[in-house]
This record gives sequence, structure tokens and C-alpha cells, in this order.
Amino acid sequence: MAAEDGEVAAGFTVTPWEVSGKVDYDKLVRLFGTTPIDKKLLERLKKHSNGTLHPFLKRKLFFSHRDLDVLLDGFEKNGEKFALYTGRGPSGRTTIGHLIPWMFTKYLQDTFNAELYFQLTDDEKFLIKDGLTIEDVIAFTQDNALDVVACGFDPKKTRIFADTEYIKTLYKTAISVAKKITFSTAKAVFGFKNDSNIGIIFFPAIQAAPAFLPSIIEGKPVPVLIPCAIDQDPYWRIARDVAPKLGFPKPAAIHSKFIPSLGSGGKMSASIPETSIFTTDSEDVARKKVMNAFSGGQATVAEQKKLGGNPEVCSAFQYFVFLFENDDAKLGVLESECRSGRMVCGDCKKMLADRVCKFLNEHQERREKAKDVINDFMVRD
Amino acid sequence: MAAEDGEVAAGFTVTPWEVSGKVDYDKLVRLFGTTPIDKKLLERLKKHSNGTLHPFLKRKLFFSHRDLDVLLDGFEKNGEKFALYTGRGPSGRTTIGHLIPWMFTKYLQDTFNAELYFQLTDDEKFLIKDGLTIEDVIAFTQDNALDVVACGFDPKKTRIFADTEYIKTLYKTAISVAKKITFSTAKAVFGFKNDSNIGIIFFPAIQAAPAFLPSIIEGKPVPVLIPCAIDQDPYWRIARDVAPKLGFPKPAAIHSKFIPSLGSGGKMSASIPETSIFTTDSEDVARKKVMNAFSGGQATVAEQKKLGGNPEVCSAFQYFVFLFENDDAKLGVLESECRSGRMVCGDCKKMLADRVCKFLNEHQERREKAKDVINDFMVRD
Repeated sequence: MAAEDGEVAAGFTVTPWEVSGKVDYDKLVRLFGTTPIDKKLLERLKKHSNGTLHPFLKRKLFFSHRDLDVLLDGFEKNGEKFALYTGRGPSGRTTIGHLIPWMFTKYLQDTFNAELYFQLTDDEKFLIKDGLTIEDVIAFTQDNALDVVACGFDPKKTRIFADTEYIKTLYKTAISVAKKITFSTAKAVFGFKNDSNIGIIFFPAIQAAPAFLPSIIEGKPVPVLIPCAIDQDPYWRIARDVAPKLGFPKPAAIHSKFIPSLGSGGKMSASIPETSIFTTDSEDVARKKVMNAFSGGQATVAEQKKLGGNPEVCSAFQYFVFLFENDDAKLGVLESECRSGRMVCGDCKKMLADRVCKFLNEHQERREKAKDVINDFMVRD
Repeated sequence: MAAEDGEVAAGFTVTPWEVSGKVDYDKLVRLFGTTPIDKKLLERLKKHSNGTLHPFLKRKLFFSHRDLDVLLDGFEKNGEKFALYTGRGPSGRTTIGHLIPWMFTKYLQDTFNAELYFQLTDDEKFLIKDGLTIEDVIAFTQDNALDVVACGFDPKKTRIFADTEYIKTLYKTAISVAKKITFSTAKAVFGFKNDSNIGIIFFPAIQAAPAFLPSIIEGKPVPVLIPCAIDQDPYWRIARDVAPKLGFPKPAAIHSKFIPSLGSGGKMSASIPETSIFTTDSEDVARKKVMNAFSGGQATVAEQKKLGGNPEVCSAFQYFVFLFENDDAKLGVLESECRSGRMVCGDCKKMLADRVCKFLNEHQERREKAKDVINDFMVRD
């Protein structure tokens, strides 16, 4: 399916480089041809983590997959291990939104005792962003890597690499992939145009390569599970098509929704700093952003008390759902307090700001410590 | 100019991947927009090598250039040095035809005391040839590198590298180049199609990168001179367009004609082994190929003696001109003996076979010795 098809059919756009419009995730699953995570799969996952479900699964932040059931079959029946592969395009500072798949990956690493390959696509960001120099992306790469490490991965089981530093390891696999992908295919999947540069046209091959690295490094077929936001799915579609032609297992994936921005609609994006919380934001800055968040509340406190709030359009409420209120009962109370007007937006946001600041403090502490151990994680040619 | 334009206008095809039809070199110079090497330039080159002209220049095997005069200006006036850059696509064994630009490059290295960057484009050949595996091109790469070393380059001033082994050094420059080249441009220059694979579409950026490596390694602008067969010119056109945008000097080039095959028409090509002499051919094999060469002679010895030969269409005569008879007077005698019918093809070819075998013996001896010193030349990441 071409990116354009999705756009026309669904009234929103989801490509690796653009997410816009109001995303209908049910439609997206059908358009992309992925599989919704159903109750049965949730039960299986629950068993692997002592009967509790990760909050991101419980709240359906991770909602779709490809072949996760197949991986679990092998793991459960024959103890067949799989590796994890995820990444980040270092085009700016890290936001809380970026942390979501990494936190989830940390849970997967712990649960399945899995090796993690973490790709920092400095080349992609340099190639796709007009104003960005190689020096810029290298600086962002180093900065972003600290946030990855701060998520708590096991240094013995984690390889973090920047493409430009690890290209010798990736390149032979990348050109093997590239040989199997025509310009027509890449154009259809990614919406390349005649004025796309020849570097970004090649890039899907670089992005696919780490999916096959565990098999190459271990000298036997080791499938990967890719936790990522669903906009990255086109890359894995390509990798899945090519895998059997190169004798590798097809990569599996588990997809998240987009963490909303603090504005009205859209995903949290580092390119709109005022509605995004960066991991390095000071308490003051973060608090201010939360207090300015779009809540969809009434114009005045009096009206809010009378008419009640609108949690389904409120970005603050989404943050409680996805990250900051794990207790279902408490979330239920919060929702009804809002709807009834008993809780006004200012008080609600203040509560969220406290939790965001606590989260940031803890993350920033781990991020500082990451500076001492970053070299245990980074691999270079 | 698009590859297709040249084809239509000139009745022959010259692209980096195809040379066919009877090439009109004067037309080609106009089509490609290069500059013929004139008497004035030859005089300047003569001065740099003790008043003698290299045989390949004397016989107009190297016949065209871009900006060689500009490089000589800098060299002569201000002692500005330049580097040499050439290469080989390792898709098979080395032929005598491949040695031509390398032998000329050896002369340029000695004459201008220049550093040489020699690129073995294993990635390109893997990407462009359907049946070729990465293992195949790696084997050819190692084999071909011995022939390069056997040409007698200075190990202190020569870096030979295979793309897949040196990609970390090349990659940042390659993506900087790639960012400046749209698919449209690459399509126009190289004739890419929608079914071209995305690796070969990116490859021109990899091919351009070594042209800027001397400037990067030396930390100041160092132009390169690229000795190559003229079919490679499209690559340097791209590199020349991009150079000023990246702050590098434009690469200069000096172009050779194609060494003819031993058949009737076409360039010597490793893919037609019976009309190509490989550097590793045994004396018997080489002799047989020469004796079977197309000469354009008459049907019988009696007719040949009566009507005379046709040196302008004779592949054997071309070999004397380009490689095996440096003495102008002796070449003149050979030509008139042929035209008059006094020399018959069998005797002429026997004389050529003797010289070819002597050349091969000497090359093979140096090639054996190259095995001991190859590591002094090869650079890897």
C-alpha cells in the first residue's frame, strides 16, 4: 500500500516522515495490514511477566503487531530466542514521546531476556532534513543515546550504534537488501519523488539491515521483534518482503500509537517545542508546558464547574492514561471528577505537572549516570 | 546529457555500464562536453617527464580531459600538489585493457609525485550484476588488487581500498554528496529506470566520495586528477557539479579510449573471455587468442599477398599501436608491410603473440611478488 493511498482513503497521513490528521487506528491497522493485539495475545504476554500486564499494553498504547504470536510460539514451545530491534532518528532532543517505545523495549528485554539492537539513524536525519549538518546529527546522536541508556537496558545485552559509526557492519547487508528493492517499490511504499535525493532513496536498505544482524552475528536464524510507533511500519514491510529472499527470518513488530502533543491534536514532536516535553526540560519549563496544555475545557472556571470537562479531547488526560496514572480505579475517579466539573483544569494540570516533574527528575538522574557508562552500550566499527 | 541522448545522437552507446557500437571519439568529446588534449597540453606534459611523451599520450590513447590544464597551472606556478584517483569494478579477472589506465596512473604518480587513491567498487559490481554474490566480488577484488600492485605503484603514496572495507571512511562524504543529487539528476546522467535497484541508484555518491578524500585527509583543498576510460565520465560530471556545494575542488580527469577486443569491434571486456587477454592467461592461452584475433585480412594468404591488409580494422594492429610497438618508425614499417601484402596476418600475429607473452610473463612475475606486499597498499576501516 502506498503512503498516498492511506492518505486518500483515511483522511489522515501516516508515513515514516509525516503524521498528520486525526489518526483512526482501526482504519490504520486495516490499511497497513497489521494485526490488532487481541485478548488472547494479551493473556499470553501476561503469563510471561508474572501475571501482570505492562501498562502500555493494558492501556492499548501498544495495539498492533506483525507475527508476535509466531515469535511467542517458538519461544514457548522450543525456547527459541528472538532479539529486539528499535531505534531513533536523531533530529533533535528527546521527548517523553520518544521514550515510550524504549521503555516498552526495556520491558521486553527483561521479560524475554533478549539482546537489543538500537539504531540511531544519523544518516537518515541528515539526508531528510534540509537545514541539518552532519555535525548537528552527531551532536543529537550523542545526546539521544543518553536517554536510551537512561531507560535502564542491560549493557551486556544491548548494542547501541549510530549508522555512520557502524556502517561497515551494516553495509554488506544493506546492499544485499538494496539489490532486492527497485525504485518503483521504494517509491510506492515511501512516496519518494523524482526530487528525492539518492541517499534517502537508499536509506530503507540501511534501516532494514539491523533486522538481520542478530542472525548474522549469531550465525543462525534469530528473528527480531521491532517495538516502534506504527508510522515506522513501512520499513518493516520492505524488510519482511526481502527477508526470505536473503535467507533470514521475517522481522516481527509491535506497534504503538502516537503519544499526543500537549497542543490540540497531532503527535508529540520535537519540532514543536512548546507542546512537547523534552527529557532535559527543567522543572519550570516542563511545568509551564503542562499548565499551558490544551485541555478542551470550558472557557471559565464557572462554566467548567457547571458543564464539566472533556477528557477524550484533553491532552492532559491522555498523559494520565498513557504514562502517569497506572491505577485504573484512580483514573476512573479522575475521569468522572473531570466530566462532572468537580475537578477544574488548573488543578488537574497541576497534578499532572507534579508527576511529569517527578518522572523527569528520575529520568534526568539516570541520564546523568548514563554519561559514565555510555561506552558500555555503544558499538562502533 | 543523458546516456540516451548520446545513444540517439551518435549511433553508439557509452555509459559506465555499456559501451557498444562504433565509438566516434570526436563526437563523444562534444557529447560529453570534455576537452580534447591538444598539442599545447601535450607539450606541457612532455616538460614534466624529461622531454619525452608517454606512449599512451603520443598514440592518443589518452585523448580527452577536464581541467588538467587548471591542475598544471597550480602545480607549475605554486607547486600546488594534486592527488590521483582511479579504480576498478571487480566483476571478473583483470584484462590487459584494464591495465591501460593503471599503467598511465603509475606514470602520473611518478611524474607528479602524487598520492593515489585506488577504489575497488565491489559494492557496485554486486549491485549491478544479477548473478554475482558478495563472495564473488570479494574474490575478484582480492585478485584484481594484485594486478593493481603489479603496475608498480609507490606503497608509500598509494591507498587501495574496496568499498565494503572502507565504507566507514567513505560514508559521511557519500551521504553529503547524495543529499545534493536528486533521483531525476541521477536518472538523466546514468539512465536509471524505475526497476533499477535502490543500491545502484545511491552508488554514484559512493563513487564520488574518494574524489574528495584527499582534501578531507589532508585538511586542505587537494584536487584530484582521475585517469579513466571515457565511459566513466558521467560519474565525474556529478562529482564536479557537487564539489563546490560541499566546499571541495572540482575533480579533474584525463580520459582514455577503449582498448579494442581481439574480436571485430567492441572494447576488450572480461565478459567475453575468448577475445580478451587476461593478465593471468598462460602463454598458450594468450598465444591462441592472439592467433585467433580478428585482423580484417583477406580470405587466403595468396589474396593477402596480392591485395594487402587493412590495419585500420585489424585488432592486432591496434595492439601494436597502443601497447606493443612504441617505436614510430617500426610501427610505420609494420603498417606498410601489412598494406602492401608483404607481411601476412599469421606472421604479424606471431610477432604480436611473442610480445604479449613477454608482457604477460613480466606482469605475472610482478603479480606474484605483489602477494607479499599487498597489505602495504590496502587500507581498511
